[in-house]
Amino acid sequence: MEEAPNKQIVFRDFIVGNPKETDMELKVGKVGLKVPEGSGAVLVKNLYLSCDPYMRGRMREYYDSYIPPFAPGSVIEGFGVSKVVASDHPNFKAGDLVSGITGWEEYTLIQKFDQFRKIQSVDIPLSYHVGLLGMPGFTAYAGFYEVCSPKKGEYVFVSAASGAVGQLVGQLAKIYGCYVVGSAGTKQKVNLLKNKLGFDEAFNYKEEPDLDAALKRCLPQGIDIYFDNVGGAMLDAVLLNMRLHGRIAVCGMVSQKSMSGAEGIHNLFMLITKRVRMRGFLQSDYLNLFPQFVDQIINYYKQGKIVYIEDMNEGLESAPAALVGLFSGKNVGKQVICVSAD
Amino acid sequence: MEEAPNKQIVFRDFIVGNPKETDMELKVGKVGLKVPEGSGAVLVKNLYLSCDPYMRGRMREYYDSYIPPFAPGSVIEGFGVSKVVASDHPNFKAGDLVSGITGWEEYTLIQKFDQFRKIQSVDIPLSYHVGLLGMPGFTAYAGFYEVCSPKKGEYVFVSAASGAVGQLVGQLAKIYGCYVVGSAGTKQKVNLLKNKLGFDEAFNYKEEPDLDAALKRCLPQGIDIYFDNVGGAMLDAVLLNMRLHGRIAVCGMVSQKSMSGAEGIHNLFMLITKRVRMRGFLQSDYLNLFPQFVDQIINYYKQGKIVYIEDMNEGLESAPAALVGLFSGKNVGKQVICVSAD
Repeated sequence: MEEAPNKQIVFRDFIVGNPKETDMELKVGKVGLKVPEGSGAVLVKNLYLSCDPYMRGRMREYYDSYIPPFAPGSVIEGFGVSKVVASDHPNFKAGDLVSGITGWEEYTLIQKFDQFRKIQSVDIPLSYHVGLLGMPGFTAYAGFYEVCSPKKGEYVFVSAASGAVGQLVGQLAKIYGCYVVGSAGTKQKVNLLKNKLGFDEAFNYKEEPDLDAALKRCLPQGIDIYFDNVGGAMLDAVLLNMRLHGRIAVCGMVSQKSMSGAEGIHNLFMLITKRVRMRGFLQSDYLNLFPQFVDQIINYYKQGKIVYIEDMNEGLESAPAALVGLFSGKNVGKQVICVSAD
Repeated sequence: MEEAPNKQIVFRDFIVGNPKETDMELKVGKVGLKVPEGSGAVLVKNLYLSCDPYMRGRMREYYDSYIPPFAPGSVIEGFGVSKVVASDHPNFKAGDLVSGITGWEEYTLIQKFDQFRKIQSVDIPLSYHVGLLGMPGFTAYAGFYEVCSPKKGEYVFVSAASGAVGQLVGQLAKIYGCYVVGSAGTKQKVNLLKNKLGFDEAFNYKEEPDLDAALKRCLPQGIDIYFDNVGGAMLDAVLLNMRLHGRIAVCGMVSQKSMSGAEGIHNLFMLITKRVRMRGFLQSDYLNLFPQFVDQIINYYKQGKIVYIEDMNEGLESAPAALVGLFSGKNVGKQVICVSAD
């Protein structure tokens, strides 16, 4: 069977805090260029790879989560957009564009097809299938409509608001008729929120000595819906500003360096005082809604009602630094790696 | 107009941590023995007064809660069972037994009638109308059925399980077909849970060096429903033991001495991992269900399916110490003060 060299990003060993570049290494492996008959597998060439905060969790030695950890010495896995090179699977043929879980490498033999999809639409940038139309976009969609129970005119706050998920949450909330405020960690991101993504107000949390005061300034009436991507001190400050019967969708805790050292949340008494509902969720629990999500978002996009900001790095070699950068907020918008343009 | 002396428990000044007996004082005021014509008021003689943890919140200078603080120098207010002495209100007449918010004093002129009710049933101990059939019982009922979304066979954990609310939650959960574990702070209370209140298992949290380990021992399969009366370290340990799609009803935080010094909760990441819903609630949001609650609980009680444990103190003078005792777990069961037997 023919083989070719295959550049790969390999996971070295379990981490405790945030990932460092040295937790991953570039290796050159080999890939078989044919798919074994009867295997049902698909060989793909990877075009775009997605860097997502949840991947930090897979780098930790913790087995009780919704997804198992990476095995040390194995290739990093994540969402990607790929082109089928060879297929033994009836639903896929050479030349098809696909999105789903793939390897951080040039070529991957796909054997698991959960959330693996053929890309139909071609008038949307291909890389959007790991962002706007992929897991982060669907997280925003399911979280906003299914977890936040929005009502027109409500006050919505989004943290990490210019990120892969937050930027769509804010735009969906605006379209729904909410008043939307976002937080981000640089002046540039705050400008994007206000001038490009249509947020009503935004602030740079790194320049606010008192997050409670910042929230009271931007949302003097309080918060009906908090879409929480960060946890920690921001969540604690938001709790003090929740309105009666408010809702908190707990989507991510990117601010928390480690599980054992998570910052303490002190203001949960507000859940009682204001009868607040707080709910953790994963997009994968709502996959029955995926087709309507794709239809709606493509419509909004074509009508110019939503935009999507990407931070594109070139080359597989750039992937470790890009992943690491997520945890210091280095990325501006959805972080994607372009492995190959086609 | 005729007046009579009226022993009263007066609130001295705002507190910061837990109340002390010296935050209240016994005074002898005066009460008019006739109700002013056209006032719509009702004069009652107080028979039983209720000591409830939420009253601590009214002793703090905090105006953004669901109920305003007590005014320093005024008589303490709380739930009580009383007998109407004189009435200018069309729904009440002399001799009626009533329950609702009254004063910590011998006689009270009632002018607000929220949650004020005439007592119909007479084959239930009168004092139960501030417990089993009053606010705490209704809190258990609304919290369990409306907030916990129980399913038969689920694993339920209740903290402060022998208290005014917890003891009914546990019994309702058992009747519903759940497996029920409770925690309490003395051996005597643990025995009551297991031998009198029908809990499947119970433990004394004060004798457990590791709450996580205690929960794993009593609930090896994990927790579907946590009815949280205490907050703090127990909540943090429970979070580590929640099952997929579990629910936490946040009813009280009696363990938390003050708002500003609340213990940090570190394990909220579990809300995401296990897709848990956490919800604060107040019984007063569910008052439309009160009639069916009374019917159901009276039925269960008459059928011998539920019991209710009270801790009865004699005399208005005993009220401050009884209230203070709630916060060290001195009470065994629902804390009531008998001001007068009739």
